[in-house]
Amino acid sequence: MTYCVGVLLNEGIVFASDSRTHAGVDNFAQFCKMSVFERAGDRVIVLLSSGNLAGTQAVITTLRQRAAADDGQPNLFSVGTMFDCLTLVADAVRDLERRDGPHLQKSAISFDASFIVGGQIKGDSPRLFRTYAEGNFIEASPETLFLQTGEAKYGKPILDRVITPTTSLSDATKCVLVSFDSTMRSNLSVGMPIDLLRYEANALKVTHRRRFESGNEEFSKLSRHWSDGVRSVFRTLPDVEW
Amino acid sequence: MTYCVGVLLNEGIVFASDSRTHAGVDNFAQFCKMSVFERAGDRVIVLLSSGNLAGTQAVITTLRQRAAADDGQPNLFSVGTMFDCLTLVADAVRDLERRDGPHLQKSAISFDASFIVGGQIKGDSPRLFRTYAEGNFIEASPETLFLQTGEAKYGKPILDRVITPTTSLSDATKCVLVSFDSTMRSNLSVGMPIDLLRYEANALKVTHRRRFESGNEEFSKLSRHWSDGVRSVFRTLPDVEW
Repeated sequence: MTYCVGVLLNEGIVFASDSRTHAGVDNFAQFCKMSVFERAGDRVIVLLSSGNLAGTQAVITTLRQRAAADDGQPNLFSVGTMFDCLTLVADAVRDLERRDGPHLQKSAISFDASFIVGGQIKGDSPRLFRTYAEGNFIEASPETLFLQTGEAKYGKPILDRVITPTTSLSDATKCVLVSFDSTMRSNLSVGMPIDLLRYEANALKVTHRRRFESGNEEFSKLSRHWSDGVRSVFRTLPDVEW
Repeated sequence: MTYCVGVLLNEGIVFASDSRTHAGVDNFAQFCKMSVFERAGDRVIVLLSSGNLAGTQAVITTLRQRAAADDGQPNLFSVGTMFDCLTLVADAVRDLERRDGPHLQKSAISFDASFIVGGQIKGDSPRLFRTYAEGNFIEASPETLFLQTGEAKYGKPILDRVITPTTSLSDATKCVLVSFDSTMRSNLSVGMPIDLLRYEANALKVTHRRRFESGNEEFSKLSRHWSDGVRSVFRTLPDVEW
């Protein structure tokens, strides 16, 4: 499993992904699921990967190779809108599904690669999408500002409560980290490190990116402060009337 | 789906259940999933039902009929411990599974009835259990103070953060209601009314029970206050260092 979140705000976008991959409980490993395509002053495109690792790595590498080829074909650095970027991601997913899918089917496994994709291309506003395993995709809207993939349930309620279009990038970042902490307490298949990227609208470059390693003291402190804070909120709520 | 929770505290036990049943999105209804066996001064036993409605109703009715028969066979009013109560629940589940199971199998449906069962019998302390569809069961312990059935994931993180053995019944009750609110925001198969029972240790009778109907103003206010409270907690947390 995996947990990835993208949150679209007036101030920009917050992206976060965990790093655990596994094939059964006795075979887990650590891989970064955050990929960035950046040309400062022109575009920042961030992809967060969910699914079978072989599939998601192949899609990302294919997108990188196609961008590097610069052969006149559309690629993530040449297209003019985020929507067009998403169609390129979908094309790569479907190309690889065609190649690998039949072989996986022999073992009753389906090709499974889905992505949260967001960012900004000069001339357009910041936008946020998620793709499904079939390559089709949806875009975040004012009614649904955050998109999740993987083990989404544990971490959703706090995002539901807190995120509005005017939430600051700073508050949304803390909220996303709490959402990860809540998920990791209950699901062993989601694990540190957490990759975090805060994109500021119209920056057109990556200014804030960091990783929280396992045991990170700042992360642990945030978790403790949060738990203390919510317990204090309960004490201030009116008691139930019987 | 369903959502039921029992929380075991030093001060007593909080029980809550939703009321929605459904067979597809185009066929949903409302049934109380909380059943109480009470003999004031001697015992209070609360059952919260999850599973196929025909199965859970049959189990509860069988337990009631066996208790009323008073035929020398052990029943929920005659046995001396909560553990023995749980074996009676398991027996009823298995009796009905034997009767209905083969008929359900013809439609590829399995007999599915599980329960959160808690309460207190004179001479014993308050105890809390949950049964599985097979009739086997587990008991809450100091490391795991709350037990959930049904759509448990959305509502778990807040219980994880707040509940300790010394949490007051009052705070735990509010926490359980927030846990329900968080779940109902994301899963249409969990719905109001919410049945709530607060059992005070050694009371040996039901002193606090109520129902929150859909649109209840107190419930809506609790939800709003909670959302406001957690947003204010985020503003007090230290910002992430980049």
